[in-house]
Amino acid sequence: MSRMRDAFHDELNALTQRLVQMTHLVRSAISRATTALLDADLQLAESVISQDAEIDRLYKELEAAIFELMATQQPVAVDLRTAITALRMGGDLERMGDLAEHVAKIARMRHPDSAIPPELRDTILEMGQIAERLVTKTGSCIANQDVDLAKELDDDDDAMDRLHRRLFRVLLSKNWTHGIEPAIDITLTGRYYERYADHAVRVAHDVVYLVTGDRPEVASDS
Amino acid sequence: MSRMRDAFHDELNALTQRLVQMTHLVRSAISRATTALLDADLQLAESVISQDAEIDRLYKELEAAIFELMATQQPVAVDLRTAITALRMGGDLERMGDLAEHVAKIARMRHPDSAIPPELRDTILEMGQIAERLVTKTGSCIANQDVDLAKELDDDDDAMDRLHRRLFRVLLSKNWTHGIEPAIDITLTGRYYERYADHAVRVAHDVVYLVTGDRPEVASDS
Repeated sequence: MSRMRDAFHDELNALTQRLVQMTHLVRSAISRATTALLDADLQLAESVISQDAEIDRLYKELEAAIFELMATQQPVAVDLRTAITALRMGGDLERMGDLAEHVAKIARMRHPDSAIPPELRDTILEMGQIAERLVTKTGSCIANQDVDLAKELDDDDDAMDRLHRRLFRVLLSKNWTHGIEPAIDITLTGRYYERYADHAVRVAHDVVYLVTGDRPEVASDS
Repeated sequence: MSRMRDAFHDELNALTQRLVQMTHLVRSAISRATTALLDADLQLAESVISQDAEIDRLYKELEAAIFELMATQQPVAVDLRTAITALRMGGDLERMGDLAEHVAKIARMRHPDSAIPPELRDTILEMGQIAERLVTKTGSCIANQDVDLAKELDDDDDAMDRLHRRLFRVLLSKNWTHGIEPAIDITLTGRYYERYADHAVRVAHDVVYLVTGDRPEVASDS
């Protein structure tokens, strides 16, 4: 029995490794997508789009490993919670990969132009940087079961929301001269970054839940 | 042991009831949200926004019931799959409630005006109707474990995607005279309906997975 329990905990450890690896891939994806958007770099955009399959594959492997684990090990209650929560964390990370891919598709669609007009480049760059910071912290939360770091993510998420509102202010100002199409692109792009951030925060909150048993107050999706 | 198994299956049955009840609530939510949007009806919009808490509560109850079930019953592999999948279905339905709430918030934000200009009223109405049809079919799929019906949902989802593309065509046509703000509203609204449909299809696909063990080809999120 004790050997079985050890095997179970080794497996959970392997799940953690997979989740951390997913944070690396989705960080790289949003970083490249942001650069593709700002530089109108088609190759970089294509790389994000084609490499999303790798993130999807990791998630499927995670799912299969968890199902296998739960089917063979008859884990006790607390480990069930860990396994199910790991599944949800994987689902959120997989979704973050999709959102990075959406940003890359907007870059591809407008190539050789940039979808981002000059007066919004700094805002989009900052949104991309916050997205990267969030997911990097999320990865550290997972790797180190760091509850205090998880709480820091809320501040970054607030900063993301402020930048998101700034996008709309610029779109609706009298000085907006770029017309409808860039406004649509920016509306969608802003939504993708904001959702990406929300999912990163959810994953970090799941770490808090696993470590403490309490779920942090969930910020409503604006 | 056999009595324990029976208790487990009664519980799973109760989960199904909860999921079906969630489909009723999220159908009502998107129906009222669409009407609130088209009629600029503030009270109706407020009702969707305030009643989302009820959907969230149902999801939390479902989650607690599933955790309790898995902790106490030591279910075998196939039932674990059912329980975990039910959890994911609940998560998708909870998200559909959020998306209906987002539509209602756009209606509230533009009140006493309507966020939808005359030339797009029919498209938005149709998107709302397809959303309702999708979730109603999803509810039947769950209640009756109906795999054939689940396949029908893909056609409705294709129709939703066509309407979504029509929105953009109208926004980008030379005849668009409403400026940026309604374009932003419609871009976001279209995205919310399209995501609502995607989640409904995911839930139906999960029914197929539970019944047949195979996962239908997943349409990529456009």
